[in-house]
Amino acid sequence: MSENIYPTFERMLTREEHERLTGTRGVMLWFTGLSGSGKSTLAIALEHELARRGLQSRLLDGDNLRTGVNAGLGFSAEDRFENVRRTACVGRLFVDSGIITMAALVSPTSDLREMARTIIGPADFREIYVATPLAECERRDVKGLYARARRGEVKDFTGISAPFEAPEHPDLVLDTGVLTIDQSIARLLRLLGLEA
Amino acid sequence: MSENIYPTFERMLTREEHERLTGTRGVMLWFTGLSGSGKSTLAIALEHELARRGLQSRLLDGDNLRTGVNAGLGFSAEDRFENVRRTACVGRLFVDSGIITMAALVSPTSDLREMARTIIGPADFREIYVATPLAECERRDVKGLYARARRGEVKDFTGISAPFEAPEHPDLVLDTGVLTIDQSIARLLRLLGLEA
Repeated sequence: MSENIYPTFERMLTREEHERLTGTRGVMLWFTGLSGSGKSTLAIALEHELARRGLQSRLLDGDNLRTGVNAGLGFSAEDRFENVRRTACVGRLFVDSGIITMAALVSPTSDLREMARTIIGPADFREIYVATPLAECERRDVKGLYARARRGEVKDFTGISAPFEAPEHPDLVLDTGVLTIDQSIARLLRLLGLEA
Repeated sequence: MSENIYPTFERMLTREEHERLTGTRGVMLWFTGLSGSGKSTLAIALEHELARRGLQSRLLDGDNLRTGVNAGLGFSAEDRFENVRRTACVGRLFVDSGIITMAALVSPTSDLREMARTIIGPADFREIYVATPLAECERRDVKGLYARARRGEVKDFTGISAPFEAPEHPDLVLDTGVLTIDQSIARLLRLLGLEA
């Protein structure tokens, strides 16, 4: 060949080309809320509902990030910042791939969520506040973390020994102590412009 | 609702469910080779060819990683390691999403590539050695980096002042000094089990 570069191949696939392939618009649903509030449960339920409709999604949560791209990061303020930063950067790549992307992270402060919004881009960022009250999260205590935090065995535990700053202008508020999963999923689908 | 967890929604979508949605098998094509060897050019050309066939892909290269999840990392041995580690972890998420994933990174040592293979999982990892000779890469010098390296202005530049360890058992060898892009793409398609 005469040259190293194909004229029509000079640039990576655009987001629009990716979205034509997936048949949907890339977007980030950022679930924030206390430990045990139901963030991952709702995101998982939404994934399954989207799949039933033939729509692709990617859920980014503690389980697939902490053992991967976020391995080695802890819960100090600095590490939480880097955790959210990397999660948002990975999310950006999925959004650019035309995929409905979800992040389920406590992300307890406005600063952290603003960083995520900036990295993703405000037009593609939806803040979902899973506003289940602390008392209900602590009653569930799925992972036994609240009991440990109350005994002082877990430092800086959000809601107990570290603050949670409630979002001021979330795109959606879901209290899983009041709403059924079906009701929450219906609201999420409407937020995505889909029929519930 | 009586419980926080839907029985059928306890687990994230499986890879098989993602692959049903994308209609293809997730795989990582890891392009390794000198700067200027044509890694990104081939990956970009393959992206477009796959898109024409309705197949989704995601290219991870310096451009979308260095300003994102790999921001702040340089070219020290330690930083190169972390660069490849994070890239492979992000790639793993795309592979698990049933997407044909490509990484275009110099990744100059066997250790680095073995780490990537381990993170991705050997069954999903294909090593593509873009074996364009140094003289040809230097002749092209698209980014002017070889000239700068020869003048001693770029430290530890692979091929000039830092070693490149050629893969011993690559899945594919492509010398873009000899093969046209069409010929290379045909070989990549066959590696993916697709008609060229």
